[in-house]
Amino acid sequence: MRLVIALGGNALLRRGQPMLCENQRANVRTACEQIAKAYEGNELIVTHGNGPQVGLIALQSNAYKAVPMYPLDVLGAESIGMIGYMIQQELVNFVPKSASLCNVLTQTEVDPKDPAFQNPTKPVGPVYTKEEAEELAEKMGWTIAPDNDKYRRVVPSPEPKRILGIEPVKTLVKSGYIVVCCGGGGIPTYFDETGNLVGAEAVIDKDLGSSVLAADVEADMFIIATDVDGAYLDWGKPTQKRISRADPQTLRGYGFAKGSMGPKVEAACRFVEATDKTAVIGALDQIEKIIAGQAGTRVTPEKGIEFA
Amino acid sequence: MRLVIALGGNALLRRGQPMLCENQRANVRTACEQIAKAYEGNELIVTHGNGPQVGLIALQSNAYKAVPMYPLDVLGAESIGMIGYMIQQELVNFVPKSASLCNVLTQTEVDPKDPAFQNPTKPVGPVYTKEEAEELAEKMGWTIAPDNDKYRRVVPSPEPKRILGIEPVKTLVKSGYIVVCCGGGGIPTYFDETGNLVGAEAVIDKDLGSSVLAADVEADMFIIATDVDGAYLDWGKPTQKRISRADPQTLRGYGFAKGSMGPKVEAACRFVEATDKTAVIGALDQIEKIIAGQAGTRVTPEKGIEFA
Repeated sequence: MRLVIALGGNALLRRGQPMLCENQRANVRTACEQIAKAYEGNELIVTHGNGPQVGLIALQSNAYKAVPMYPLDVLGAESIGMIGYMIQQELVNFVPKSASLCNVLTQTEVDPKDPAFQNPTKPVGPVYTKEEAEELAEKMGWTIAPDNDKYRRVVPSPEPKRILGIEPVKTLVKSGYIVVCCGGGGIPTYFDETGNLVGAEAVIDKDLGSSVLAADVEADMFIIATDVDGAYLDWGKPTQKRISRADPQTLRGYGFAKGSMGPKVEAACRFVEATDKTAVIGALDQIEKIIAGQAGTRVTPEKGIEFA
Repeated sequence: MRLVIALGGNALLRRGQPMLCENQRANVRTACEQIAKAYEGNELIVTHGNGPQVGLIALQSNAYKAVPMYPLDVLGAESIGMIGYMIQQELVNFVPKSASLCNVLTQTEVDPKDPAFQNPTKPVGPVYTKEEAEELAEKMGWTIAPDNDKYRRVVPSPEPKRILGIEPVKTLVKSGYIVVCCGGGGIPTYFDETGNLVGAEAVIDKDLGSSVLAADVEADMFIIATDVDGAYLDWGKPTQKRISRADPQTLRGYGFAKGSMGPKVEAACRFVEATDKTAVIGALDQIEKIIAGQAGTRVTPEKGIEFA
């Protein structure tokens, strides 16, 4: 099977965890150990988020006063260089020596008139207390928003329209290489009035971007790997139950949390609608079971919903 | 012809120029306008340096005190993400719409016992006065060295042994894609005693790294694009004269400045010795003439030296 596995930026630099390089390394290593289990007998494309990382790089860029801060698309490219490099390096240590990897920096086209540019929603960087966040918002001109019991900076997250340069990615996958790409959902870009390709000050949702990529590379299965074992009804309540399978329309009908499970469910649904194939939201440490159809929340075209 | 064009990190963020994003953008655009002239009828691989950029990112990373500085290989990966993205985006605006680009992050294997790790020589980041540099050296634990009339931070620059993941790059080039890769000469990595691939705290010379890449991808011509129109004897003196062609042995015999023309000459010579093909050191704005064999300093296997 041709698999696209999307890794959360938060899985690589955990929420609330000090943003140390060694923490990120350790998380990437753990993730790669799991991803490697999906290699045997499959074509593998790995995508990844960059929310915490692009936020960190923005803070670093802002802290060095001798040079004004670079725009968000360029900082995003930096974060993708960083994360992609770590994944590429660690994954080599877990796949057979005969496997060959390629780490591709992809851009994703967005609509410059996307209303998201007026309404920032994507959390980036570390979590803050309400007081810290409000102070930073005023000082740095940020938009902030609640994130569970804390606050974070939020930036525009426009809809991914298409992956630029999908053909080389297809060529690489068909040639048998493991491809790491579509980091951060792809760097947001658009063609301006003069037809010139330019960057956009935004961060694309990595699951939505990866969904477009998965459809475009004709993946057989799109796996959104996270730290929970699927999408739940009544999440956090005594009545919570895991959805083991559902069709896109039924699944969407339930409504999921905007900042976390919502985009994952939407990304999975879009892939299934575009391809009639299977998308799975599940825990990275169950990757083999997910591929075998025995774990996670599977989204398929057949009507109905089933629970675990 | 299959061409490898190596762009200087200093050409993208000029020495002494404020390290603003818009300056870098403008330089990348100018460079890409020239590179695009090499596209017609040729297979194109573009590599680039990252000295000023990795130095800037190190300063930014250091300025944000909440998180300890990331190691140089990771900062290098960030810089390569940044530069590669800008090149990829700007180059699209100058090549025919039918052209397809792929930006690949490559690692380069080095020897962890390379004596360069004990003897830092590669300048990174901005230029400083002697007093500023000495103060920073003490405060940050840097090694500093003179750079013309100023001072800069220097870091270890080990020998590139081989490009990791050269096969995907070859596949892409043979499939007709323009490939941007080997940024910063590739991110320095090595296999440790346990056989694990790990990053090295260093910055590879982009010309030497690109030379290895050019030989490995079986390039017909390796072009080191810089801001001067070739290698000169008696550079800066009234007697200065441009070398129009020479063989590696003769050229090496003259000795060139370590921090600037030296590595370019060495990189060109190594490519010619490895392949019996042609390497050219020349001005980016003469790219068409360089390809036609009418400009720059050409290094070829035939014995002898000629002057312009």
